[in-house]
Amino acid sequence: MRTRDKIIQASIELFNLHGERQVTTNHIAAHLGISPGNLYYHFRNKNDIIRNIFNEYAKLLDKSFAPIDADNDVIVSLSHYFDTIFELMWKFSFLYANLPDILSRDAALQQRYMQVHATLIEKVRLLIQSLKEAHVIDIDEQDVPMFADSLKLQVMFWISYLRVQKASISIKKAEAYRGVVMVLLQFKPYVCEPAMQAILDLQVHYQKQADENLDDD
Amino acid sequence: MRTRDKIIQASIELFNLHGERQVTTNHIAAHLGISPGNLYYHFRNKNDIIRNIFNEYAKLLDKSFAPIDADNDVIVSLSHYFDTIFELMWKFSFLYANLPDILSRDAALQQRYMQVHATLIEKVRLLIQSLKEAHVIDIDEQDVPMFADSLKLQVMFWISYLRVQKASISIKKAEAYRGVVMVLLQFKPYVCEPAMQAILDLQVHYQKQADENLDDD
Repeated sequence: MRTRDKIIQASIELFNLHGERQVTTNHIAAHLGISPGNLYYHFRNKNDIIRNIFNEYAKLLDKSFAPIDADNDVIVSLSHYFDTIFELMWKFSFLYANLPDILSRDAALQQRYMQVHATLIEKVRLLIQSLKEAHVIDIDEQDVPMFADSLKLQVMFWISYLRVQKASISIKKAEAYRGVVMVLLQFKPYVCEPAMQAILDLQVHYQKQADENLDDD
Repeated sequence: MRTRDKIIQASIELFNLHGERQVTTNHIAAHLGISPGNLYYHFRNKNDIIRNIFNEYAKLLDKSFAPIDADNDVIVSLSHYFDTIFELMWKFSFLYANLPDILSRDAALQQRYMQVHATLIEKVRLLIQSLKEAHVIDIDEQDVPMFADSLKLQVMFWISYLRVQKASISIKKAEAYRGVVMVLLQFKPYVCEPAMQAILDLQVHYQKQADENLDDD
């Protein structure tokens, strides 16, 4: 791995473990056994590192949550989306844990976030539309935009919701999976009868992930 | 009003307007035209003020969200709950905007928050149960605890969700009302047919509040 990529990976790991506020560029350099000077050769400061991590996060988002395709198995597609939600929450938990604070310290990142948010919320609306058209869910047309916001809010702030209820900073896999169970529950009351058993199966699947990963981190 | 109460009210106002991080005890004293020494006679520091504000917030919570009583009009009760959600979001928006950060800076407040949270989440569960028993909503028994968390998460982080989408700090009444519309939407797909028209009426009512308060602050 190139030094630049190593710095990014180590930063994500340390931010997730100790909280982004608590980790300095010196900690990151020491963790990698490189000099602060070497780190500064690759990144101007911590904000610069965070912006690069955010770009990686945005790239993953960009590839995800396309409208469902009626030619494919809808439940398999949905399951991919829920897996992606878990992976994003788990990999970038520090971002989710502290987003308002991180954005308030970097006007450029705030602007970038707003673009990424606008693109994503539009994708989520189209995804909900496609589930409605495929008769997987039944939802009033007028409620689609608010439901999209509601889903995005829950994904974005699940980690914060956990954090304010406990003293420790790092989260466990089981807790991220509980977030997925919660997002799935938002869909459940909208689900049409023919798709209901598949949704119940998914609910059992993710609940099992939450129960089985209790001791992991 | 006593000086002590004036300090609390001015602090809430300034925190909501400029963000809690940006306001110091000196700003609060200057805003009231009192000396910093006079302020310190009443409160040891900013954390002490925030703890007292939190107590006021907790007292309001304590009086709210009791299980519905089948002898009263259920929709009238629900409408009181939604009004309370608006009032709390509007009056204490700075708390909702920055909760993880505020709690991370005060271990005693973090402990207090955890108690208040545990009491409230239990109340919300009982409230959902009572709506189920009154046949206002239909929800699987096993989903009640997660639905309670889901509602609380949305109320707690709606303001944060708004904040990360815009540069300005203070929120408008219309935006807090949109949060109420969102919480109401969470109930809607669970609502049983006989109660549906009343829920639709509530949805129109709060949407109107959101539309009419666009220019207020």
